[in-house]
Amino acid sequence: MVGKIEKWGIFEYSAKGKTEGNPFTDYSISAHFESKSEDKTVSGFYDGGGNYKVRFMPSFEETYRFTVYGSFSEETFSGEFTVMPPSENNHGPVCVYNKYHFKYADDTMYYPFGTTCYVWELQSDELISKTLETLKNSSFNKIRFCVFPKHYDYNFGEPRSYPYEGTPVDSSAITDENFWGYDAKSKGNNWNFERFNPIHFQHIEYCISELQKLGIEADIILFHPYDRWGFSTMTPEQNELYLRYVTARFSAYRNIWWALANEYDILKHKSVEDWDRYAEIIMESDPYGHLRSIHNCVPFFDHKKPWITHCSIQKQELCSVEHTDEWRNEYKKPIVFDEMTYEGNIQYGWGNITGKELVRRFWEAVCRGGYGGHGETYLDGNDKILWWSHGGALKGESPSRIAFLRKIIEEAPIGGLKMQPPSWGDLCAIPEDDEAAEKTGYRLFYFGIKRPVFYNYHFDDENIYHVEVIDTWNMTIKNAGEFKGRFRLELPGREFIAVRVRKV
Amino acid sequence: MVGKIEKWGIFEYSAKGKTEGNPFTDYSISAHFESKSEDKTVSGFYDGGGNYKVRFMPSFEETYRFTVYGSFSEETFSGEFTVMPPSENNHGPVCVYNKYHFKYADDTMYYPFGTTCYVWELQSDELISKTLETLKNSSFNKIRFCVFPKHYDYNFGEPRSYPYEGTPVDSSAITDENFWGYDAKSKGNNWNFERFNPIHFQHIEYCISELQKLGIEADIILFHPYDRWGFSTMTPEQNELYLRYVTARFSAYRNIWWALANEYDILKHKSVEDWDRYAEIIMESDPYGHLRSIHNCVPFFDHKKPWITHCSIQKQELCSVEHTDEWRNEYKKPIVFDEMTYEGNIQYGWGNITGKELVRRFWEAVCRGGYGGHGETYLDGNDKILWWSHGGALKGESPSRIAFLRKIIEEAPIGGLKMQPPSWGDLCAIPEDDEAAEKTGYRLFYFGIKRPVFYNYHFDDENIYHVEVIDTWNMTIKNAGEFKGRFRLELPGREFIAVRVRKV
Repeated sequence: MVGKIEKWGIFEYSAKGKTEGNPFTDYSISAHFESKSEDKTVSGFYDGGGNYKVRFMPSFEETYRFTVYGSFSEETFSGEFTVMPPSENNHGPVCVYNKYHFKYADDTMYYPFGTTCYVWELQSDELISKTLETLKNSSFNKIRFCVFPKHYDYNFGEPRSYPYEGTPVDSSAITDENFWGYDAKSKGNNWNFERFNPIHFQHIEYCISELQKLGIEADIILFHPYDRWGFSTMTPEQNELYLRYVTARFSAYRNIWWALANEYDILKHKSVEDWDRYAEIIMESDPYGHLRSIHNCVPFFDHKKPWITHCSIQKQELCSVEHTDEWRNEYKKPIVFDEMTYEGNIQYGWGNITGKELVRRFWEAVCRGGYGGHGETYLDGNDKILWWSHGGALKGESPSRIAFLRKIIEEAPIGGLKMQPPSWGDLCAIPEDDEAAEKTGYRLFYFGIKRPVFYNYHFDDENIYHVEVIDTWNMTIKNAGEFKGRFRLELPGREFIAVRVRKV
Repeated sequence: MVGKIEKWGIFEYSAKGKTEGNPFTDYSISAHFESKSEDKTVSGFYDGGGNYKVRFMPSFEETYRFTVYGSFSEETFSGEFTVMPPSENNHGPVCVYNKYHFKYADDTMYYPFGTTCYVWELQSDELISKTLETLKNSSFNKIRFCVFPKHYDYNFGEPRSYPYEGTPVDSSAITDENFWGYDAKSKGNNWNFERFNPIHFQHIEYCISELQKLGIEADIILFHPYDRWGFSTMTPEQNELYLRYVTARFSAYRNIWWALANEYDILKHKSVEDWDRYAEIIMESDPYGHLRSIHNCVPFFDHKKPWITHCSIQKQELCSVEHTDEWRNEYKKPIVFDEMTYEGNIQYGWGNITGKELVRRFWEAVCRGGYGGHGETYLDGNDKILWWSHGGALKGESPSRIAFLRKIIEEAPIGGLKMQPPSWGDLCAIPEDDEAAEKTGYRLFYFGIKRPVFYNYHFDDENIYHVEVIDTWNMTIKNAGEFKGRFRLELPGREFIAVRVRKV
């Protein structure tokens, strides 16, 4: 067989094999891929119906030879394929760059502007299409979601499919009052944790591919605590089997990120040692080293651990994004606020701030050298479809302003931003790289809730600076002119104003 | 001589004495006052024109005998007076009550709702009258101001009078650029720090009396760093002379509080030992034990020191009022945010937040068992009269809302409020006294920037609760009805909503 695929695309080999016993555990498939620059052995998986598959993401425009081994057969299969250049919007997987930032494998900068829709992919076809349409028209380039279904207020329905063979707990008795303590075991879940349901994973792969077409990273949450089916309380052996299956299936998708947990600290059955072990399994089974994070409810996991590529943070204190720069210094990794309170109006404090406040937090995080995260929880009459969990349509005021901010950041010098040491708490972002800072003179002042009617600047006496006044809420950029030496800049005296400065 | 004065009023005895040499240092006057319940010896002061005076504030409705001693004469003078009941709005001096709160000497609760006008009393007669008129129509019951004039941006003018005999530095060369480093000594101040200017102090006393008539406490700032005259860099001996003179003059005014410093940490010439010594002098010379505090720019003074009666706090971190409850636990004293950023629009970050944000901070502080503080810094065209320093008229949106909050707090159970241990960050104030809390069932929930459209409550299954929904910005109180057991309360889904709950 000779096939052609593109760089960072997926080569998939499928073989018919035995169906006796438990194909998920009794047999295995793997393959070895070799080209001039690359040499990888990857594990495959059983996809049901007697089909054993192995997937590979090539990283070089070279000719690859491969050999496939199946424990269900004596014979091996060999072949080769030639890798073509990536198609237009294929930049490869994202990796950490410049310590606190990200880039794609093709060296294009990647600035995360993510959103959260925990189980959008487990909703109806109609709602999934609506979500994809919404994402297509948004500026979000990352989305956090779960492999397992979610059990939580506003989320008592059944998912479209389950990850395992078996039958779910009876959910007819769930109420707003009892859902917290809703005890899975006592209500009779009946799963075979050694037999996966390929349809569940095939569907998630469809969603990952659709996101990939839109240039959106899939930040896959592998474990989470909001559960009535017992998926959060499986044994370590069952978890290992699950992780090896998921990584064998998903790793070849270039837009995958691994979020080991949503709110690891609520998952009382798992110890720090467990998490370290699960990370080890992922690193063994994912030959491409996709990004890995673990997200807190209250206390942080130790983000200094080497297996963590970036800090996935939930707002921890009263004041949180304001600590972005401190946490950069502490963890020496990118700071991504995947949860910093959602725009909405529900009864919970984590989901009822204004769009203005959420956008302020994005600016604050970005000007301190980190990145924000979006979420939306609007109750709208009887419409209980909240973006935060179901996807659908966006109702909030923040997405358009987040898109505006993304544009501003993409116009900044390559390499990302960091906070200039503040004088009296005035916030100013400058390029991460001193050379770029010196060369461009780029400064992004953000006044947030402060509303000066003027501001006195004095950068130096030699250079001429082009200055723009940005209204981050009304999304306007006003050319204030060119200045030299000490100068006074008139400002609108409104909240949420930024000033962008660049050397002429 | 037989006179009649009221309880917590001022008895003043004036004697003619020697004018040779330096009456401020060469001679002294003191008096001993005795009644059935009180026995005090107080120091007097030289008031110029050969007049030596001694003042006394009686605390009991009794007949007092007194004897006056003057070092300028061999003879002593004795007399008596009878103290009448206090007049209607005379509640006596304020003291700490219930560890974290305040009351007047007549046991009326005092809830501080203060403002800052650093040198309002050193302005023109016209502006002073305007300030007093503004205060009369406001809800402020405390005002922070300085004995010494202020040198700072927007404050380069000369005061109406100086505390000492002599002549001031030439200020004609001051500009916005050089005022920070404006060096007093090099420009030739010429003061006699051993000869006070009684007119300066007589005028301040007039202002203190006017405030007293309005029921406003005078939080007198004894030292501050914003100086071009050298008053912030006097020797310890000169400071002691100053403190003994001020306390001898002012202590008998029932509405005096002693603020040892505004921003003590900027006063580099004074060590912690100096401050402790100055506090000791004040405690020796003030026979009534008026309240004493010391206010920071950035680091706190050690508010645990016994001479400090309450914590006078300037916003220290990005998030500050949100720490009110922690600081209560740390210092075991009342927490008063005398500076938590001013409503305004000037170029400085400490003076350009919205009225909404300032009012939010007041509510946050109060619901956490502390107290806020007001200030206003509006630039209005060419009007450079900023309330923060000069007084005059108020332009902001916060004062009327602060008045509304004061009314809410005055309607709460006697004894002050504290924060209920928060669940998931939801803020609720309850009475400081457990008995009052149990008896009244009083709860004051404050949602701040959170905007739930409903909230689920469940206090207990026995009692009926009367519930009101308060819009803290629009100043409305809506009766939501009476509820029992578990109930759902519909809310407006706007920011700055509070819910007041009381047992029926």
